[in-house]
Amino acid sequence: MASTVSDFGLSCGILPAGAHNAITDVPGVRVGHCTLRNGDTNTGVTAILPHGGNLFRKKVTAASHVINGFGKTIGLTQVQELGSIETPVLLTNTLSVGTCATALIRDAIRQNPDIGRSTGTVNPLVGECNDGPLNDIQALAISEEHALAALADAHEGEVEQGNVGAGTGMTCFGFKGGIGSASRRIALGGGHHLGVLVLSNFGRPGDLVLPDGRRPTSGQPAGDERGSVMIVLATDVPLEHRQLERVARRAGAGIARLGSFWGHGSGDIAIAFSTGNLVDHDESRDLVPLLALNEARIDILFRAAAEATQEAVLNSMLSAEAFTGRAGKHRASLADWLRDQQR
Amino acid sequence: MASTVSDFGLSCGILPAGAHNAITDVPGVRVGHCTLRNGDTNTGVTAILPHGGNLFRKKVTAASHVINGFGKTIGLTQVQELGSIETPVLLTNTLSVGTCATALIRDAIRQNPDIGRSTGTVNPLVGECNDGPLNDIQALAISEEHALAALADAHEGEVEQGNVGAGTGMTCFGFKGGIGSASRRIALGGGHHLGVLVLSNFGRPGDLVLPDGRRPTSGQPAGDERGSVMIVLATDVPLEHRQLERVARRAGAGIARLGSFWGHGSGDIAIAFSTGNLVDHDESRDLVPLLALNEARIDILFRAAAEATQEAVLNSMLSAEAFTGRAGKHRASLADWLRDQQR
Amino acid sequence: MASTVSDFGLSCGILPAGAHNAITDVPGVRVGHCTLRNGDTNTGVTAILPHGGNLFRKKVTAASHVINGFGKTIGLTQVQELGSIETPVLLTNTLSVGTCATALIRDAIRQNPDIGRSTGTVNPLVGECNDGPLNDIQALAISEEHALAALADAHEGEVEQGNVGAGTGMTCFGFKGGIGSASRRIALGGGHHLGVLVLSNFGRPGDLVLPDGRRPTSGQPAGDERGSVMIVLATDVPLEHRQLERVARRAGAGIARLGSFWGHGSGDIAIAFSTGNLVDHDESRDLVPLLALNEARIDILFRAAAEATQEAVLNSMLSAEAFTGRAGKHRASLADWLRDQQR
Amino acid sequence: MASTVSDFGLSCGILPAGAHNAITDVPGVRVGHCTLRNGDTNTGVTAILPHGGNLFRKKVTAASHVINGFGKTIGLTQVQELGSIETPVLLTNTLSVGTCATALIRDAIRQNPDIGRSTGTVNPLVGECNDGPLNDIQALAISEEHALAALADAHEGEVEQGNVGAGTGMTCFGFKGGIGSASRRIALGGGHHLGVLVLSNFGRPGDLVLPDGRRPTSGQPAGDERGSVMIVLATDVPLEHRQLERVARRAGAGIARLGSFWGHGSGDIAIAFSTGNLVDHDESRDLVPLLALNEARIDILFRAAAEATQEAVLNSMLSAEAFTGRAGKHRASLADWLRDQQR
Repeated sequence: MASTVSDFGLSCGILPAGAHNAITDVPGVRVGHCTLRNGDTNTGVTAILPHGGNLFRKKVTAASHVINGFGKTIGLTQVQELGSIETPVLLTNTLSVGTCATALIRDAIRQNPDIGRSTGTVNPLVGECNDGPLNDIQALAISEEHALAALADAHEGEVEQGNVGAGTGMTCFGFKGGIGSASRRIALGGGHHLGVLVLSNFGRPGDLVLPDGRRPTSGQPAGDERGSVMIVLATDVPLEHRQLERVARRAGAGIARLGSFWGHGSGDIAIAFSTGNLVDHDESRDLVPLLALNEARIDILFRAAAEATQEAVLNSMLSAEAFTGRAGKHRASLADWLRDQQR
Repeated sequence: MASTVSDFGLSCGILPAGAHNAITDVPGVRVGHCTLRNGDTNTGVTAILPHGGNLFRKKVTAASHVINGFGKTIGLTQVQELGSIETPVLLTNTLSVGTCATALIRDAIRQNPDIGRSTGTVNPLVGECNDGPLNDIQALAISEEHALAALADAHEGEVEQGNVGAGTGMTCFGFKGGIGSASRRIALGGGHHLGVLVLSNFGRPGDLVLPDGRRPTSGQPAGDERGSVMIVLATDVPLEHRQLERVARRAGAGIARLGSFWGHGSGDIAIAFSTGNLVDHDESRDLVPLLALNEARIDILFRAAAEATQEAVLNSMLSAEAFTGRAGKHRASLADWLRDQQR
Repeated sequence: MASTVSDFGLSCGILPAGAHNAITDVPGVRVGHCTLRNGDTNTGVTAILPHGGNLFRKKVTAASHVINGFGKTIGLTQVQELGSIETPVLLTNTLSVGTCATALIRDAIRQNPDIGRSTGTVNPLVGECNDGPLNDIQALAISEEHALAALADAHEGEVEQGNVGAGTGMTCFGFKGGIGSASRRIALGGGHHLGVLVLSNFGRPGDLVLPDGRRPTSGQPAGDERGSVMIVLATDVPLEHRQLERVARRAGAGIARLGSFWGHGSGDIAIAFSTGNLVDHDESRDLVPLLALNEARIDILFRAAAEATQEAVLNSMLSAEAFTGRAGKHRASLADWLRDQQR
Repeated sequence: MASTVSDFGLSCGILPAGAHNAITDVPGVRVGHCTLRNGDTNTGVTAILPHGGNLFRKKVTAASHVINGFGKTIGLTQVQELGSIETPVLLTNTLSVGTCATALIRDAIRQNPDIGRSTGTVNPLVGECNDGPLNDIQALAISEEHALAALADAHEGEVEQGNVGAGTGMTCFGFKGGIGSASRRIALGGGHHLGVLVLSNFGRPGDLVLPDGRRPTSGQPAGDERGSVMIVLATDVPLEHRQLERVARRAGAGIARLGSFWGHGSGDIAIAFSTGNLVDHDESRDLVPLLALNEARIDILFRAAAEATQEAVLNSMLSAEAFTGRAGKHRASLADWLRDQQR
């Protein structure tokens, strides 16, 4: 089970977490993983499903924000133009984006045989980080089947975190990184949540600052920041695209609070969606009623996005056990460092 | 009265125009001018009011698009962030933006004494073109009173076009430019309009192409494109900010159809607003119902924006009489050129 | 051999074309195709190589501009952040972007075994249009081998145009579209070129306007604009990223002059690169000398970009023979229409 | 004299500061203030001059980044399009932007009588924060003369900080804010600096986090974040516009480290310029040699931007004495809070 900041007496901000303290606190959101761990191959795929239905038919309102664009994500152009997501979001290693995109396309065609026939094509959305140091990334070990396995594994409730799925071979501030999640309750309009899932693979060793001001040392040399971080934010608060873009931007604040300055070599990308305003692919009305947040109330979402992003990264590190990957490269666990400090 | 393309047997596209073929075909929209013509001073202010009420209290949904950013417009940053306009839009000469902004601020405080006290400040929106060749722009002849006069002159119905208001000293493709307007009926959701008002001051002499392929010659030497064009688009179709941004972008297509390539020295800026979704400054609900256009229907608005922008520019030139400005500089009238051709 | 606008007495603008009137007039630029035509499969891959060397080691300065983002291109995020291109540019059908990206990655690793080991990963750049109506796009017929074949076919000099490579199954304004190219001589700093290659698949039947004002009719029903256009611009004028972005934007003006309003369903994306400032992956100096264009001279590049884009689209249609594709769907040739008119 | 973080045993990051720990450590940069303190009027103007010569003639390379766009800055559109600044940067209160812009225009015309005559117009650059709570902002007390006085006061060397110039009436995290500055030495290419000047007026009371983890309490109620922060970054490292934009973005990380999540009501805007590549308004060459930073070395500038922004904000608060403004509204000094803690 995932360790989280509260297990170590830490906290990120002031808002309360949801029941699972995970992106799945947003009703309908599902997460699944496919993990490859075999010799020098330490990689995987993680799937985030905004809801359990046909996403191409019922798209979710969405936006993205590029914190630092040294990254190879596919799908962002259309998300920004149309303000919606129409496939699951897959996360994987940098060189497997193409394969995962093809898997999403085939899966969408299977569910919607009219794609590329009597309706338009489909926009696959795949994010990535470079797990090169711990994974033989040149092997291109991810196949379409692995992507489908992550989709098939997706479920509501508890989110498996740490060295799992796309997070298997990731490194964060010199420690073992990976998949992390966190959520915040939003006291608006009857009760909502904002949840975050990160794939953490960024941060120069020595730069990490804990919420209490401590600066853990991983034993890794400082070097350049060569990683990346993918941040997926979900909420059931009904938001417009423009509002979601504003919320996505605040993920950068969460990352900065950890001590990062969004290094040059890091692809730091946030994708946000709301399940509160579905977009019907087959909509027949000219004008469609929807709900938007009173803009004067948006600060609670900004705060939640910053807090939950900061915490999701820490949770990714605290859930990740120490790891030895390709060519014997080792990464310590932040959880071990904290336990050592407690002695 | 304004001459328009139809008076010369020309047409821009295939959609029908509204009753006034002007931005005021959008219900509630008002336009006013203050014109300064005195010796070397040939300049003015034009005001576009999205509705007749208190705009700070009932903002209109809005977006902007920078076609080419060699321009000094004030107010765009907040329009893009918040997706709304909260003052009238003023157009004037390049060096009078500051004065007009101050006038808008004072007018907003007069109507809303809580500004800067118990509520936030106000975002004035002022666009500009450089009427330098025909106007003694260094004289900074526009005062706050002129701005207020343009606001006071604003009315529904017919729009005065050509050498009037901010258009007094403008030049377009070597001919006399100025204020132009046009509109298109939008057969959506019960009947709507999209209207455009331009301040035309762009285009290299010799580059103009009429809708029938003719290339009028103004007698001016080619030289650089040093002008600008401000394009204000209004619609009563309920649109989100993102949709309005997409519509605003199509103004660039209208400009390009005239033969422009959006020259380096030209500040080509489009501002679009919808009266279909007002934003209440004092909104008390957490979640606000609104209407958005079914995205699959948006092409009619794109087409209308391109057509009406192209036509509004031509109307500005066809309504503008030949003009002799500062230091005896002369600009021919495109209407005269067309009449000569008909003989 | 490719037919071009001049074969039909048409011309786009006033600047002179280069020797091949093609993107390959920019020294070093190479183009190759792999064409699949077999029953319902009518698709392919087109490769543009900015130079003949190792692109990962010697990147070209680059920028992109999204005219309308209903598209699935991969690689734009990093192009915008770092201002460079480090692989060939591949064009293909919408659902084959992933496969082509993986092919580019494998090809880059083959040439640079340090990728993902001792240096960073690589950013593949693949653009697309939807050839669905004429091609069985659901078959995902493109394999990595087809991508490699297009790369292997790349050569300087004449560019094969029309129903070839990625252009095999494309449709433009109801006529057969495909691959087109054009160039302009740039009288700056000793003599340079700007060249454009397009993959044309956009435009509603009935909207096409020829440079002489004629409006060809394809016999296709009007319907929605469901296509896309990819525009690749190359120049040997040394430009900064910001300047290239400004140049790329003008491709939109070229498209608009053809009668398009950049329809909702169209992914209209421009990618521009300069071979005048190479970026050395292994640069050891802190500060690197480079050349930038005097900004006051940039209008000739803007004009060239608009003219050559307009002409490249027309050349794509004039080089494309009438075509019968999937399920007997037929597309007329614009060249045939023009020849009929001449009789 | 200005108090700084080091006087209180605090430090922001690991890079060494320059001799003045101020934006003026960048050779040539000058700062001046004009302060109005009279009854309910507590406001002013601050001027930053990138160099001591004619800025319209010798522009500096520049970029901006909007962290949160609830702001009324004028001039950003052209900075982003052309990548240069051609006037001093003025900072003032929100409602005085127009007046300061007009002052910059008149000052530029005085130095360059060809503006609007034989050359183009000029792009004034003015940033703002809302000092409404402590200043009678409705009085519009700033005149053009005050702007000119700030320009005349500009000098190299020590920067006056705290309750001075535009900072006179500002509030930050519930404490007194104002003008702050900091710098970092950049060990690149022979030795350079990056300096930051902020106008701090943001942050919800209770959210401030000191570098050592402490959370000072100002005694103000929490309420909304209604402020803003203007951040001006200067460097003599030669950078392209794109690189400067990347550096400007990192100011947001500096702000986030202080505990801000870039609140909705805050206009958080960064402007960055480099004195290392001047742009000659009268350039006669087609191609201009310049220097760019090896992109692989840019992390030191990112780190410097984040550290110096964080520190400049703290310095603004530590230099500001406790203040009683309009209607008896009081703001405590962070310096006093820290001194109390030391007892």
